[in-house]
Amino acid sequence: MTGARLPLPDPMRRALELAQEAALMGEVPVGAVVVCAGQIVGEGYNLTRTGKDPTAHAEVVAIRKAATALDDERLTQCDLYVTLEPCAMCAGAISHARIGRLYYAASDPKGGAVENGARVFEQEQCLHAPEVYSGMGADEAAELLRGFFRERR
Amino acid sequence: MTGARLPLPDPMRRALELAQEAALMGEVPVGAVVVCAGQIVGEGYNLTRTGKDPTAHAEVVAIRKAATALDDERLTQCDLYVTLEPCAMCAGAISHARIGRLYYAASDPKGGAVENGARVFEQEQCLHAPEVYSGMGADEAAELLRGFFRERR
Repeated sequence: MTGARLPLPDPMRRALELAQEAALMGEVPVGAVVVCAGQIVGEGYNLTRTGKDPTAHAEVVAIRKAATALDDERLTQCDLYVTLEPCAMCAGAISHARIGRLYYAASDPKGGAVENGARVFEQEQCLHAPEVYSGMGADEAAELLRGFFRERR
Repeated sequence: MTGARLPLPDPMRRALELAQEAALMGEVPVGAVVVCAGQIVGEGYNLTRTGKDPTAHAEVVAIRKAATALDDERLTQCDLYVTLEPCAMCAGAISHARIGRLYYAASDPKGGAVENGARVFEQEQCLHAPEVYSGMGADEAAELLRGFFRERR
Protein backbone atom coordinates (compact mmCIF):
# COMPACT_ATOMS: atom_id res chain seq x y z
CA MET A 1 0.00 0.00 0.00
CA THR A 2 3.09 2.24 -0.05
CA GLY A 3 2.28 5.57 -1.60
CA ALA A 4 -1.44 4.90 -1.61
CA ARG A 5 -2.17 6.78 1.59
CA LEU A 6 -2.79 10.45 2.13
CA PRO A 7 0.03 12.27 3.90
CA LEU A 8 -0.53 12.66 7.63
CA PRO A 9 -1.46 16.12 8.88
CA ASP A 10 1.41 17.82 10.71
CA PRO A 11 -0.14 17.61 14.20
CA MET A 12 -0.58 13.82 13.93
CA ARG A 13 2.98 13.50 12.67
CA ARG A 14 4.09 15.50 15.72
CA ALA A 15 1.97 13.31 18.02
CA LEU A 16 3.75 10.24 16.61
CA GLU A 17 7.15 11.89 17.28
CA LEU A 18 6.03 12.54 20.86
CA ALA A 19 5.01 8.90 21.22
CA GLN A 20 8.52 7.90 20.16
CA GLU A 21 9.98 10.24 22.79
CA ALA A 22 7.80 8.53 25.39
CA ALA A 23 9.16 5.11 24.39
CA LEU A 24 12.73 6.36 24.79
CA MET A 25 11.86 7.25 28.38
CA GLY A 26 10.32 3.85 29.06
CA GLU A 27 6.80 5.25 28.96
CA VAL A 28 3.97 3.68 26.97
CA PRO A 29 4.33 5.37 23.55
CA VAL A 30 1.31 7.63 23.16
CA GLY A 31 1.59 11.27 22.11
CA ALA A 32 -0.93 14.11 21.90
CA VAL A 33 -1.08 17.60 20.45
CA VAL A 34 -3.63 20.41 20.96
CA VAL A 35 -4.01 22.78 18.03
CA CYS A 36 -5.70 26.17 18.02
CA ALA A 37 -5.98 28.24 14.81
CA GLY A 38 -3.25 26.20 13.15
CA GLN A 39 -0.79 26.57 16.04
CA ILE A 40 0.27 23.90 18.55
CA VAL A 41 -0.73 25.29 21.96
CA GLY A 42 -0.06 22.18 24.03
CA GLU A 43 1.56 18.80 23.53
CA GLY A 44 2.68 15.87 25.59
CA TYR A 45 3.25 12.19 25.98
CA ASN A 46 2.62 9.63 28.67
CA LEU A 47 4.49 10.55 31.83
CA THR A 48 2.80 8.31 34.38
CA ARG A 49 5.96 6.49 35.43
CA THR A 50 8.49 9.30 35.17
CA GLY A 51 6.13 11.83 36.75
CA LYS A 52 4.72 9.43 39.35
CA ASP A 53 1.31 10.69 38.24
CA PRO A 54 -1.42 8.19 37.28
CA THR A 55 -3.34 10.98 35.50
CA ALA A 56 -0.44 11.97 33.24
CA HIS A 57 -1.66 10.39 30.01
CA ALA A 58 -0.62 12.20 26.83
CA GLU A 59 -4.03 13.82 26.34
CA VAL A 60 -4.23 15.15 29.93
CA VAL A 61 -0.69 16.52 29.74
CA ALA A 62 -1.42 18.26 26.41
CA ILE A 63 -4.79 19.64 27.56
CA ARG A 64 -3.36 21.02 30.80
CA LYS A 65 -0.54 22.72 28.91
CA ALA A 66 -2.95 24.20 26.34
CA ALA A 67 -5.29 25.52 29.06
CA THR A 68 -2.33 27.15 30.80
CA ALA A 69 -1.03 28.62 27.53
CA LEU A 70 -4.43 30.03 26.58
CA ASP A 71 -5.28 30.92 30.21
CA ASP A 72 -8.67 29.30 29.75
CA GLU A 73 -10.15 26.07 31.09
CA ARG A 74 -12.26 25.80 27.94
CA LEU A 75 -10.48 24.89 24.72
CA THR A 76 -13.54 25.43 22.55
CA GLN A 77 -11.58 26.56 19.50
CA CYS A 78 -9.08 23.72 19.80
CA ASP A 79 -8.61 20.30 18.22
CA LEU A 80 -6.76 17.37 19.79
CA TYR A 81 -4.62 14.84 17.92
CA VAL A 82 -3.60 11.67 19.76
CA THR A 83 -1.98 8.46 18.60
CA LEU A 84 -4.33 6.11 20.50
CA GLU A 85 -8.05 6.00 21.23
CA PRO A 86 -8.58 7.87 24.53
CA CYS A 87 -9.41 5.95 27.71
CA ALA A 88 -12.36 6.94 29.95
CA MET A 89 -10.22 9.40 31.92
CA CYS A 90 -8.95 11.15 28.81
CA ALA A 91 -12.30 11.12 27.01
CA GLY A 92 -13.77 12.80 30.10
CA ALA A 93 -10.97 15.38 30.10
CA ILE A 94 -11.55 16.07 26.39
CA SER A 95 -15.25 16.63 27.09
CA HIS A 96 -14.61 18.92 30.08
CA ALA A 97 -12.11 20.91 27.99
CA ARG A 98 -14.72 21.39 25.25
CA ILE A 99 -12.31 20.20 22.54
CA GLY A 100 -13.90 20.80 19.13
CA ARG A 101 -12.48 17.94 17.10
CA LEU A 102 -10.74 14.79 18.26
CA TYR A 103 -8.46 12.95 15.85
CA TYR A 104 -7.04 9.65 17.04
CA ALA A 105 -4.84 7.20 15.16
CA ALA A 106 -5.16 3.63 16.47
CA SER A 107 -8.25 2.14 18.06
CA ASP A 108 -7.77 0.55 21.49
CA PRO A 109 -10.18 -2.32 22.11
CA LYS A 110 -8.38 -3.10 25.41
CA GLY A 111 -8.54 0.35 26.98
CA GLY A 112 -10.38 2.78 24.73
CA ALA A 113 -13.57 4.55 25.76
CA VAL A 114 -14.64 6.28 22.56
CA GLU A 115 -15.62 3.51 20.14
CA ASN A 116 -15.07 0.83 22.79
CA GLY A 117 -16.16 0.18 26.36
CA ALA A 118 -17.56 3.17 28.22
CA ARG A 119 -18.23 5.12 24.97
CA VAL A 120 -18.03 8.30 27.04
CA PHE A 121 -19.17 10.71 24.32
CA GLU A 122 -22.33 8.71 23.66
CA GLN A 123 -23.63 8.94 27.25
CA GLU A 124 -26.37 11.42 28.10
CA GLN A 125 -24.15 12.55 31.02
CA CYS A 126 -21.63 13.85 28.48
CA LEU A 127 -22.20 17.61 28.31
CA HIS A 128 -19.88 18.15 25.35
CA ALA A 129 -18.82 15.67 22.70
CA PRO A 130 -16.19 16.55 20.10
CA GLU A 131 -16.44 15.61 16.45
CA VAL A 132 -14.41 12.38 16.22
CA TYR A 133 -12.14 11.26 13.38
CA SER A 134 -10.01 8.14 13.64
CA GLY A 135 -7.60 6.00 11.66
CA MET A 136 -5.04 8.46 10.30
CA GLY A 137 -1.59 7.22 11.29
CA ALA A 138 -3.09 4.11 12.88
CA ASP A 139 -0.47 1.71 11.50
CA GLU A 140 2.46 3.79 12.72
CA ALA A 141 0.87 4.34 16.13
CA ALA A 142 0.04 0.68 16.61
CA GLU A 143 3.52 -0.43 15.49
CA LEU A 144 5.11 1.89 18.08
CA LEU A 145 3.01 0.26 20.80
CA ARG A 146 3.67 -3.27 19.55
CA GLY A 147 7.42 -2.63 19.40
CA PHE A 148 7.41 -1.19 22.91
CA PHE A 149 5.61 -4.12 24.48
CA ARG A 150 7.58 -6.67 22.40
CA GLU A 151 10.84 -5.37 23.90
CA ARG A 152 9.44 -5.61 27.41
CA ARG A 153 8.22 -9.13 27.24
CA MET B 1 -34.16 11.40 61.15
CA THR B 2 -31.94 13.59 63.34
CA GLY B 3 -29.73 11.44 65.53
CA ALA B 4 -30.62 8.28 63.66
CA ARG B 5 -27.60 8.31 61.39
CA LEU B 6 -24.16 6.91 62.00
CA PRO B 7 -21.48 9.57 62.46
CA LEU B 8 -19.53 10.30 59.29
CA PRO B 9 -16.00 8.94 59.08
CA ASP B 10 -13.39 11.67 59.49
CA PRO B 11 -12.17 11.61 55.86
CA MET B 12 -15.69 12.18 54.52
CA ARG B 13 -16.17 15.01 57.03
CA ARG B 14 -12.93 16.51 55.75
CA ALA B 15 -14.06 16.08 52.13
CA LEU B 16 -17.23 18.04 52.98
CA GLU B 17 -15.11 20.82 54.52
CA LEU B 18 -13.05 20.93 51.34
CA ALA B 19 -16.24 21.19 49.27
CA GLN B 20 -17.22 24.21 51.36
CA GLU B 21 -13.83 25.79 50.70
CA ALA B 22 -14.41 25.29 46.97
CA ALA B 23 -17.75 27.09 47.17
CA LEU B 24 -16.09 30.07 48.90
CA MET B 25 -13.80 30.32 45.89
CA GLY B 26 -16.66 30.17 43.43
CA GLU B 27 -15.83 26.61 42.42
CA VAL B 28 -18.42 23.82 42.23
CA PRO B 29 -18.37 22.43 45.80
CA VAL B 30 -16.87 18.96 45.58
CA GLY B 31 -14.08 17.80 47.89
CA ALA B 32 -11.92 14.68 47.94
CA VAL B 33 -9.47 13.03 50.32
CA VAL B 34 -7.02 10.16 49.76
CA VAL B 35 -6.26 8.10 52.86
CA CYS B 36 -3.43 5.62 53.34
CA ALA B 37 -3.05 3.63 56.57
CA GLY B 38 -5.32 6.04 58.41
CA GLN B 39 -3.46 9.15 57.29
CA ILE B 40 -4.58 11.76 54.76
CA VAL B 41 -1.93 11.69 52.01
CA GLY B 42 -3.70 13.92 49.50
CA GLU B 43 -6.75 16.14 49.42
CA GLY B 44 -8.32 18.71 47.16
CA TYR B 45 -11.37 20.41 45.78
CA ASN B 46 -12.50 21.54 42.38
CA LEU B 47 -10.07 24.07 40.95
CA THR B 48 -11.11 24.14 37.30
CA ARG B 49 -11.93 27.84 37.20
CA THR B 50 -9.28 29.19 39.55
CA GLY B 51 -6.58 26.94 38.13
CA LYS B 52 -7.70 27.30 34.50
CA ASP B 53 -7.44 23.52 34.33
CA PRO B 54 -10.37 21.45 33.00
CA THR B 55 -8.88 18.32 34.59
CA ALA B 56 -8.71 19.80 38.11
CA HIS B 57 -11.66 18.00 39.64
CA ALA B 58 -11.39 17.27 43.35
CA GLU B 59 -10.51 13.60 42.82
CA VAL B 60 -7.76 14.34 40.27
CA VAL B 61 -6.26 17.03 42.51
CA ALA B 62 -6.26 14.69 45.53
CA ILE B 63 -4.88 11.72 43.58
CA ARG B 64 -2.04 13.76 42.06
CA LYS B 65 -1.08 15.09 45.49
CA ALA B 66 -1.19 11.62 47.03
CA ALA B 67 0.96 10.13 44.23
CA THR B 68 3.49 12.92 44.72
CA ALA B 69 3.47 12.48 48.51
CA LEU B 70 3.95 8.71 48.28
CA ASP B 71 6.27 9.02 45.24
CA ASP B 72 4.27 6.28 43.52
CA GLU B 73 1.85 6.39 40.60
CA ARG B 74 -0.02 3.45 42.16
CA LEU B 75 -2.08 4.13 45.26
CA THR B 76 -2.88 0.48 45.85
CA GLN B 77 -3.03 0.81 49.64
CA CYS B 78 -5.16 3.96 49.48
CA ASP B 79 -8.86 4.76 49.75
CA LEU B 80 -10.56 7.80 48.24
CA TYR B 81 -13.41 9.76 49.82
CA VAL B 82 -15.30 12.22 47.63
CA THR B 83 -18.51 14.16 48.15
CA LEU B 84 -20.00 13.43 44.70
CA GLU B 85 -20.17 10.42 42.40
CA PRO B 86 -17.09 10.60 40.15
CA CYS B 87 -17.46 11.54 36.46
CA ALA B 88 -15.88 9.45 33.68
CA MET B 89 -12.58 11.36 33.90
CA CYS B 90 -12.30 10.87 37.64
CA ALA B 91 -13.48 7.25 37.61
CA GLY B 92 -10.76 6.59 35.03
CA ALA B 93 -8.17 8.34 37.20
CA ILE B 94 -9.28 6.29 40.23
CA SER B 95 -8.84 3.11 38.21
CA HIS B 96 -5.41 4.09 36.87
CA ALA B 97 -4.32 5.00 40.41
CA ARG B 98 -5.38 1.56 41.66
CA ILE B 99 -7.40 3.07 44.53
CA GLY B 100 -8.55 0.25 46.83
CA ARG B 101 -11.87 1.59 48.11
CA LEU B 102 -13.96 4.45 46.79
CA TYR B 103 -16.43 6.15 49.13
CA TYR B 104 -18.67 8.78 47.60
CA ALA B 105 -21.45 10.75 49.23
CA ALA B 106 -24.09 11.95 46.74
CA SER B 107 -25.04 10.20 43.52
CA ASP B 108 -24.85 12.31 40.36
CA PRO B 109 -27.38 11.22 37.74
CA LYS B 110 -26.41 14.22 35.57
CA GLY B 111 -22.67 13.67 35.44
CA GLY B 112 -21.71 10.53 37.34
CA ALA B 113 -20.01 7.56 35.70
CA VAL B 114 -20.00 4.95 38.47
CA GLU B 115 -23.65 3.99 39.03
CA ASN B 116 -24.79 6.22 36.14
CA GLY B 117 -23.89 6.70 32.48
CA ALA B 118 -20.55 5.28 31.42
CA ARG B 119 -20.34 2.97 34.48
CA VAL B 120 -16.57 2.98 34.01
CA PHE B 121 -15.75 0.31 36.60
CA GLU B 122 -18.16 -2.18 35.02
CA GLN B 123 -16.50 -2.12 31.58
CA GLU B 124 -14.21 -4.94 30.54
CA GLN B 125 -11.67 -2.22 29.54
CA CYS B 126 -11.37 -1.29 33.22
CA LEU B 127 -8.17 -2.93 34.46
CA HIS B 128 -8.75 -2.09 38.11
CA ALA B 129 -12.04 -1.38 39.87
CA PRO B 130 -12.13 -0.22 43.49
CA GLU B 131 -14.62 -1.49 46.03
CA VAL B 132 -17.39 1.14 45.96
CA TYR B 133 -19.42 2.47 48.90
CA SER B 134 -21.86 5.34 48.52
CA GLY B 135 -24.40 7.38 50.45
CA MET B 136 -22.56 8.46 53.60
CA GLY B 137 -22.84 12.25 53.87
CA ALA B 138 -25.04 12.35 50.78
CA ASP B 139 -27.53 14.87 52.23
CA GLU B 140 -24.83 17.34 53.28
CA ALA B 141 -22.98 16.98 49.98
CA ALA B 142 -26.12 17.46 47.88
CA GLU B 143 -27.21 20.46 49.97
CA LEU B 144 -23.83 22.15 49.38
CA LEU B 145 -24.29 21.74 45.64
CA ARG B 146 -27.92 22.88 45.68
CA GLY B 147 -27.03 25.99 47.72
CA PHE B 148 -24.18 26.81 45.35
CA PHE B 149 -26.28 26.61 42.20
CA ARG B 150 -29.25 28.35 43.87
CA GLU B 151 -27.09 31.42 44.58
CA ARG B 152 -25.87 31.51 41.00
CA ARG B 153 -29.23 31.39 39.30
